[in-house]
Amino acid sequence: MVDFQSVLDAIKETTDKAKDRGQIADYIPELANVDMHKFGIHLLDLEQHNFSAGNSNERFSIQSISKVYTLSMAMGLIGEKLWERVDVEPSGDPFNHLSLLELEKGIPRNPLINPGAIVVADILVSLLDHPKEDFLAFVRNIAGDNMIDYDEKIAASEKLTGFHNYAAANLLKSYNNLENDVETVLDFYFHQCSLTMSCAELANTFYMFINNGKCRKNNTFLTKGQVKRINALMLTCGFYDEAGEFAFEVGLPGKSGVGGGIVALLPNKFCVAAWSPGLNDKGNSKLGMLALEKLTTETELSIF
Amino acid sequence: MVDFQSVLDAIKETTDKAKDRGQIADYIPELANVDMHKFGIHLLDLEQHNFSAGNSNERFSIQSISKVYTLSMAMGLIGEKLWERVDVEPSGDPFNHLSLLELEKGIPRNPLINPGAIVVADILVSLLDHPKEDFLAFVRNIAGDNMIDYDEKIAASEKLTGFHNYAAANLLKSYNNLENDVETVLDFYFHQCSLTMSCAELANTFYMFINNGKCRKNNTFLTKGQVKRINALMLTCGFYDEAGEFAFEVGLPGKSGVGGGIVALLPNKFCVAAWSPGLNDKGNSKLGMLALEKLTTETELSIF
Amino acid sequence: MVDFQSVLDAIKETTDKAKDRGQIADYIPELANVDMHKFGIHLLDLEQHNFSAGNSNERFSIQSISKVYTLSMAMGLIGEKLWERVDVEPSGDPFNHLSLLELEKGIPRNPLINPGAIVVADILVSLLDHPKEDFLAFVRNIAGDNMIDYDEKIAASEKLTGFHNYAAANLLKSYNNLENDVETVLDFYFHQCSLTMSCAELANTFYMFINNGKCRKNNTFLTKGQVKRINALMLTCGFYDEAGEFAFEVGLPGKSGVGGGIVALLPNKFCVAAWSPGLNDKGNSKLGMLALEKLTTETELSIF
Amino acid sequence: MVDFQSVLDAIKETTDKAKDRGQIADYIPELANVDMHKFGIHLLDLEQHNFSAGNSNERFSIQSISKVYTLSMAMGLIGEKLWERVDVEPSGDPFNHLSLLELEKGIPRNPLINPGAIVVADILVSLLDHPKEDFLAFVRNIAGDNMIDYDEKIAASEKLTGFHNYAAANLLKSYNNLENDVETVLDFYFHQCSLTMSCAELANTFYMFINNGKCRKNNTFLTKGQVKRINALMLTCGFYDEAGEFAFEVGLPGKSGVGGGIVALLPNKFCVAAWSPGLNDKGNSKLGMLALEKLTTETELSIF
Repeated sequence: MVDFQSVLDAIKETTDKAKDRGQIADYIPELANVDMHKFGIHLLDLEQHNFSAGNSNERFSIQSISKVYTLSMAMGLIGEKLWERVDVEPSGDPFNHLSLLELEKGIPRNPLINPGAIVVADILVSLLDHPKEDFLAFVRNIAGDNMIDYDEKIAASEKLTGFHNYAAANLLKSYNNLENDVETVLDFYFHQCSLTMSCAELANTFYMFINNGKCRKNNTFLTKGQVKRINALMLTCGFYDEAGEFAFEVGLPGKSGVGGGIVALLPNKFCVAAWSPGLNDKGNSKLGMLALEKLTTETELSIF
Repeated sequence: MVDFQSVLDAIKETTDKAKDRGQIADYIPELANVDMHKFGIHLLDLEQHNFSAGNSNERFSIQSISKVYTLSMAMGLIGEKLWERVDVEPSGDPFNHLSLLELEKGIPRNPLINPGAIVVADILVSLLDHPKEDFLAFVRNIAGDNMIDYDEKIAASEKLTGFHNYAAANLLKSYNNLENDVETVLDFYFHQCSLTMSCAELANTFYMFINNGKCRKNNTFLTKGQVKRINALMLTCGFYDEAGEFAFEVGLPGKSGVGGGIVALLPNKFCVAAWSPGLNDKGNSKLGMLALEKLTTETELSIF
Repeated sequence: MVDFQSVLDAIKETTDKAKDRGQIADYIPELANVDMHKFGIHLLDLEQHNFSAGNSNERFSIQSISKVYTLSMAMGLIGEKLWERVDVEPSGDPFNHLSLLELEKGIPRNPLINPGAIVVADILVSLLDHPKEDFLAFVRNIAGDNMIDYDEKIAASEKLTGFHNYAAANLLKSYNNLENDVETVLDFYFHQCSLTMSCAELANTFYMFINNGKCRKNNTFLTKGQVKRINALMLTCGFYDEAGEFAFEVGLPGKSGVGGGIVALLPNKFCVAAWSPGLNDKGNSKLGMLALEKLTTETELSIF
Repeated sequence: MVDFQSVLDAIKETTDKAKDRGQIADYIPELANVDMHKFGIHLLDLEQHNFSAGNSNERFSIQSISKVYTLSMAMGLIGEKLWERVDVEPSGDPFNHLSLLELEKGIPRNPLINPGAIVVADILVSLLDHPKEDFLAFVRNIAGDNMIDYDEKIAASEKLTGFHNYAAANLLKSYNNLENDVETVLDFYFHQCSLTMSCAELANTFYMFINNGKCRKNNTFLTKGQVKRINALMLTCGFYDEAGEFAFEVGLPGKSGVGGGIVALLPNKFCVAAWSPGLNDKGNSKLGMLALEKLTTETELSIF
């Protein structure tokens, strides 16, 4: 039996000493205001034991981690039809996200990069009566926590500066892979990214990915097959251009966000969320990566 | 002395017999309504003799030909500073217009492809008090014709369907190569493209490129050096992915538009405009290309 | 306890009925002579029980599966230094293998695509006294089988037609990422690809990847950390442009070859090799993919 | 009447004062031994008057300028059929020469970049009885000079280090766009590049491009149509990634080589060769570019 608490404590100690904590994302002005000395980690095992260290209850902007929620909700609603509009392959390289869209005629490489997540957002906007409210209810439901909410300031800040996402959405539209207005879809998308949650809350929501689709309160949100596939996508595509590196060094499915959060999981064993706002040059939390690498090295627990 | 009228008559006869007239551009709904049996050609020589055949006085949407006017106006206003924001190299290939923007960090390859023309539009929007009115006045002025105007229906139609241009403008904005609002710049850009002119009017406006920068009424709009450079850009970049083919087969600087118009010129000799709405698979007028190829073959006049 | 034999028998029955068996690789003439009705599968569990169906003892050309052996041997010899010359990220797309080499200045994306495997071959050629003999001894050793051998006809056939590999090796050389002669390195590389083995033999050699680096006879070839990393690489990069699809549908680390072989494994549980010479349009065995998908669906065993 | 001699003298004076003379190409060891203070220029007008300044009679390695000779010879031999194997479009960008070959399935963008010139070399190797001897005879013939020869040391030096050309040739071979052995074709190609000629000799050979295909001794080597097309290709494709810049700044068809030579021409007026071994960062002679820019600026003679 692994003593997770000792491991988390040791990780906390290591990160406290880190001299290089990375760079805070500054392309969204609101994100730049976070204290870069924050660090938190929270682990939840299959038996629902909780372990934590540092600022594990402090909320931060989850950003791209939200793509896992929208993907889960869309898969629950339309199943396999989703794959007619987005592929499941790693995008491979940082130079050409939009060019890949051009080469592949508007079919994004996977749902965890921005263009793919915008297609998923479009699907939800089409299917839901009140997209923002219904999606928020979904997240609160799997978290078992009604206090989770959007940060309207962050959403507004992204809207003003999200030109690259506007470019992607318009390109998708030009290839007929966006059903709704660019503005409507991006309003939804910027809101999903603005969700603020703590490490503890993130770990709670990812419990269903280690428990065959059932959340902590035993409600079923996804089939076993869907969980397997979402986990596979997180492993191959969850870390931008560093997906291979994360699989190689950490060996767990997971997803990161430019707010500095990372969630990862070992099926049937545990899920874990780490947070530190400084990013490495690939856009993933520097200390978050270090923490998870140390976790799997110390415990020798990984999918491989 | 070349008998231009006989050559144009022979060209008209050849195009009359053409079985394959190409495809009309249908991505802008308003363009699709044009009668594809139209064909016109108008040639103006340095001594201001006029020669024409077919529907040479019928107006059509000049589309990308307008890029030569905005470029000329911007060069007149800011000169060499223009080249800090746009390059002068051919773009080379159809697969990767936006990807080149990504690779080259927001500097378009040249001012005659869409992203480059959008940067030029942005420059004019910044410099002019009343951008749309002032630019229209400029075109009327070099044409010596106050009846030239925008087609508001075409402009509105492009606005509704121009997602690829919205993608390009937002990408430029994300690289800080757009000073004004995307909406403001594209409103100007869609208007410049919507100008409707006849072959005769087009030939008139291009007179300054064969006459060292002086228009037909002898006013000077450009220096000799600027004319040389705009002509060079038309030769290397004026025909999308078919620029090499046009230089190779026709051997004149020129510019085409998806409305089916093509203008070309031989410095110190003549300028010529041809129009036929059916396009080849590279987006250039099928019969227009044929007409100009025949013109330079018959007369043995080209820059080479 | 899973009844693997029943599952394999059911798989065999399904593949027997398959109407579309894919296309045999014909770019290497020698490969084109194989009977496309062959199908074999062999599974070895951690306790060294063996299960099989079909032509599981018939040898075939393992081709790219050999990349896992050379990678293992090189990691054993030089460890982390390997990653100075090759990256660990998925290559993502089929259009641009050599262009990625150009963009990334001669560092291949990972050791399981051709350019990366050629770099690994170069490393072995530099380190080994008798590269071909020593490598063959290594494979025989982990297999516990001295009958495994190169097929000189296949190696010669590849040499005559392997222009794309010659292009890759010369490009690597132009970026100073090849220490030895192109000819010497490719001679080694074509030999490694020409190894002929049966499903049973392949499963035997992959036992070390489910047993923490120890082979069936308990000799240790790799550390636990190295095994974890090679498994991660197989998952993210083992199936050309279909790596995401394989992770998504099958959910196991593995490697395929154009000879129609596929090996896959579940750490601490089992390794399995399937073979059928007909390929799908991504270059992976059509029935082999089907077999492994059915295996993980029926048994509900995967890393996710 | 332009006083060319005074212009050349003024150019010589300007280049004498240049502080930055660029960098000598060092990727071919033999090229690195040239004295970088050399500068020569030679101009030949239609009436066969000769003007020169500096080291205009000193021979140097013409390198890529030879592509114009092989293209001319191949066009003379097989005419339009050439264009089934190579295109006529500018390549546009420095990042992806081989990737373009991959995207376009083995059809090089034009005959003046390396892969295109290798296809042309392959055509000559197929057609000529004694390729190297026959091609040398052709060059001597248009030059009217039997002393022109290959530099075997340079050819051997390129063979040892020309890995990028080996990569291109093998890639062409993999797409069935090379009829002969890679070694045979590249042996020819490295020899053509190794030709050593002076500015005076280069100008002599380019006389046919200003005289409708007739050389100085009045023999006809090309039709008027072929001359026009080769001139068009030189303009759009003759200066690597700087073709647009050269057209823009100089405004003449021409071709450069990494030995520091540049030839350019104004049809029916003059041809000119300049040489200085230091290159700019695009691989064209730094002072050669300056000289030609000054020539067309001072004389106001260009095709535009």
